[in-house]
Amino acid sequence: MTEKKSIAMAGLTKGRVETLTDSVFAIAMTLMVFNLRVPEVPAGSVGWELSRKLIGMWHEFTIYAISFVVLGIYWIGHHNHFHWIRKTDRKSLWINLAFLFAVTLIPFSTILVGRYPEQRDAIIFYGVNLALVGLLLYVHLLYATGPAGLVDPAMHPQVIRLAKKLILTGPAACLVAIIVAFFHPRVATLLYLLVPLFYVFLPGVDRRISRYARTED
Amino acid sequence: MTEKKSIAMAGLTKGRVETLTDSVFAIAMTLMVFNLRVPEVPAGSVGWELSRKLIGMWHEFTIYAISFVVLGIYWIGHHNHFHWIRKTDRKSLWINLAFLFAVTLIPFSTILVGRYPEQRDAIIFYGVNLALVGLLLYVHLLYATGPAGLVDPAMHPQVIRLAKKLILTGPAACLVAIIVAFFHPRVATLLYLLVPLFYVFLPGVDRRISRYARTED
Amino acid sequence: MTEKKSIAMAGLTKGRVETLTDSVFAIAMTLMVFNLRVPEVPAGSVGWELSRKLIGMWHEFTIYAISFVVLGIYWIGHHNHFHWIRKTDRKSLWINLAFLFAVTLIPFSTILVGRYPEQRDAIIFYGVNLALVGLLLYVHLLYATGPAGLVDPAMHPQVIRLAKKLILTGPAACLVAIIVAFFHPRVATLLYLLVPLFYVFLPGVDRRISRYARTED
Amino acid sequence: MTEKKSIAMAGLTKGRVETLTDSVFAIAMTLMVFNLRVPEVPAGSVGWELSRKLIGMWHEFTIYAISFVVLGIYWIGHHNHFHWIRKTDRKSLWINLAFLFAVTLIPFSTILVGRYPEQRDAIIFYGVNLALVGLLLYVHLLYATGPAGLVDPAMHPQVIRLAKKLILTGPAACLVAIIVAFFHPRVATLLYLLVPLFYVFLPGVDRRISRYARTED
Repeated sequence: MTEKKSIAMAGLTKGRVETLTDSVFAIAMTLMVFNLRVPEVPAGSVGWELSRKLIGMWHEFTIYAISFVVLGIYWIGHHNHFHWIRKTDRKSLWINLAFLFAVTLIPFSTILVGRYPEQRDAIIFYGVNLALVGLLLYVHLLYATGPAGLVDPAMHPQVIRLAKKLILTGPAACLVAIIVAFFHPRVATLLYLLVPLFYVFLPGVDRRISRYARTED
Repeated sequence: MTEKKSIAMAGLTKGRVETLTDSVFAIAMTLMVFNLRVPEVPAGSVGWELSRKLIGMWHEFTIYAISFVVLGIYWIGHHNHFHWIRKTDRKSLWINLAFLFAVTLIPFSTILVGRYPEQRDAIIFYGVNLALVGLLLYVHLLYATGPAGLVDPAMHPQVIRLAKKLILTGPAACLVAIIVAFFHPRVATLLYLLVPLFYVFLPGVDRRISRYARTED
Repeated sequence: MTEKKSIAMAGLTKGRVETLTDSVFAIAMTLMVFNLRVPEVPAGSVGWELSRKLIGMWHEFTIYAISFVVLGIYWIGHHNHFHWIRKTDRKSLWINLAFLFAVTLIPFSTILVGRYPEQRDAIIFYGVNLALVGLLLYVHLLYATGPAGLVDPAMHPQVIRLAKKLILTGPAACLVAIIVAFFHPRVATLLYLLVPLFYVFLPGVDRRISRYARTED
Repeated sequence: MTEKKSIAMAGLTKGRVETLTDSVFAIAMTLMVFNLRVPEVPAGSVGWELSRKLIGMWHEFTIYAISFVVLGIYWIGHHNHFHWIRKTDRKSLWINLAFLFAVTLIPFSTILVGRYPEQRDAIIFYGVNLALVGLLLYVHLLYATGPAGLVDPAMHPQVIRLAKKLILTGPAACLVAIIVAFFHPRVATLLYLLVPLFYVFLPGVDRRISRYARTED
């Protein structure tokens, strides 16, 4: 009866939440490229004129790549988290929508910091945006694994603890970058570059998760 | 045989209607952010110049957030409604497409009211758009739960009545806001802000729905 | 073994073709609205200045609505057709991609005819685009129901015949509109308006299809 | 236990990877058309003025069509490849995201080469972009069929070998086009046109794949 009741209560399965989320991520990822403006060169220009201009855009390409990787991190995070979700309710949906709202702001922040790479304010805005995305995913994890009980009961407490730590690393690093931005804007930008690398090459995380899964058998 | 006949008649399952709807919502939600133009500051500007300009955009951020929440409300409404849908037919598809058409106009209305926040005409246009979205979802609910019989027969009459009331609250509030806009544009804008809050913190709705579900067992 | 062989041959189920198609339609439908430019009025303008400008855009709204409905027609057509599809092969995928290519051109044609509503050339371009979409869907139907045998063998020959006639009506009407455009551009525009209406209120089609389905039982 | 462990390790099924990929492709395919700017003609222009301007855009239409077909090739390639995928892990997801990143750059490259069709630099940039997409798909195939063992064990070694050869043809052709671009930019453009044709009319590939499938039975 439990499942029937939960369906009657919310009437929402996780399938559509995932489709909406995947689409929002896909659009945010793809549309940032439309802010890369094709450089202008005179019609009859010869030599490496156009290449020079394209290389001159390296900063915009880099910030685009970073934002893409950041979106990738949070998409994987959302995917990992929702793998354990069994049902949804109204509150869970609104937390997820707030998370998506913060995600849709990333292209704006990216363009902002892409245009003003050395302005402290832009770097802080970018950091606050990224931190917000991470915090909202954290809030959803907290809510779903809490009394609402939306996750699979088989989810090992150690896996939950690890997931929480993993998700909080992002906002924590952003906080550091924001503080650093007051003194050394360039160093802060570097930090944004390091965080993605940390996530991509997550040292041993999957091994630890699989250890808990093994002991569980 | 009933199901086989219905499939032969319409040849349409609800899966693709949901995918189309989710995608349209995802695009409308994500693309509004591309109308937030990055502010212009002189290259060598110092202090909080950029921050001041960003804070000066508070009105555009607010209206974006409202529209996002409104889209969220109707997405959840559509999701809740389609949870009960068992089959579709040609009329149902066209009502849903009309609903999606009104949804795609929301980014336009949002930009309009974002640029002319104090203009009565913009506030009315926005209200008419939002009311239209709600009314078309209501029309679909009316049609699906009516003689066409597209919903699960297990859907409790009280749940249907509650869903109808819930969906009509939005257009009703928009009507009030439109009337108020003739006299106090600013108050009307405030009303648009209150309606989302009402939906997000729906007082006790899920509890009442679950009560009917329980008595049903 | 037949199914296993077909999977080995193409390695493609219809699920992803449908997702790609639904997404392309959703984007084309939603993005056309971003070409509706918010009208410019002086900051302190009073009275119905903004409303007058919005009403002055009626032509753009109309052409947007028509294109939306046309996309809706072909989406429903694609949906109805793919309901019967059991497997895909490389040729089928490329016909479908050509169909999607023509679909992605509709926003361009719509903007073109929206800006030059009385120009014969724009009206012809629009008609050729719409006709192309319909013809490519027809080609896919022809291929899938032909020797390739991609549809469910239970699909009644009468349903196939009816589907073919239905799909060809669109391109046929476009051909008439294109010819008329040489003499009376305005009348041609009217024709584009009538075709969608014909499809939306398809007289008795579902009844006839269900009749064949019934005799089939 | 193997499957359970793999779920615990990655927590990721292939469904959402496919949805994300399909959406990114749909957006990239659809949005390129928004760079086709509607030509400007005087309000009262008569004759074939508008048609002449539209025909004058043939180059932009051609490059759009080529990019669309190229995206279609890689979408089909990805689809064929993922048909055999049974599970995913973190590394596989990041290779796929890198692949998608290269895909999102195609609209930019397309606009670039559409505006500077005779500039060597633009032609090289376009070629490098296309080659990158192909190479990253190749890397994923290599990884998934390698020690990670993400593909169905029933995938015949000959099918793997054929798939690898097929995917590498694209980057190889791009390399040739890039070299040619240094001497004859126009010939290089022609090469980009030939590669898609080769893929669309893949001579006998499906027949060979099905042969291996048959011997397998």
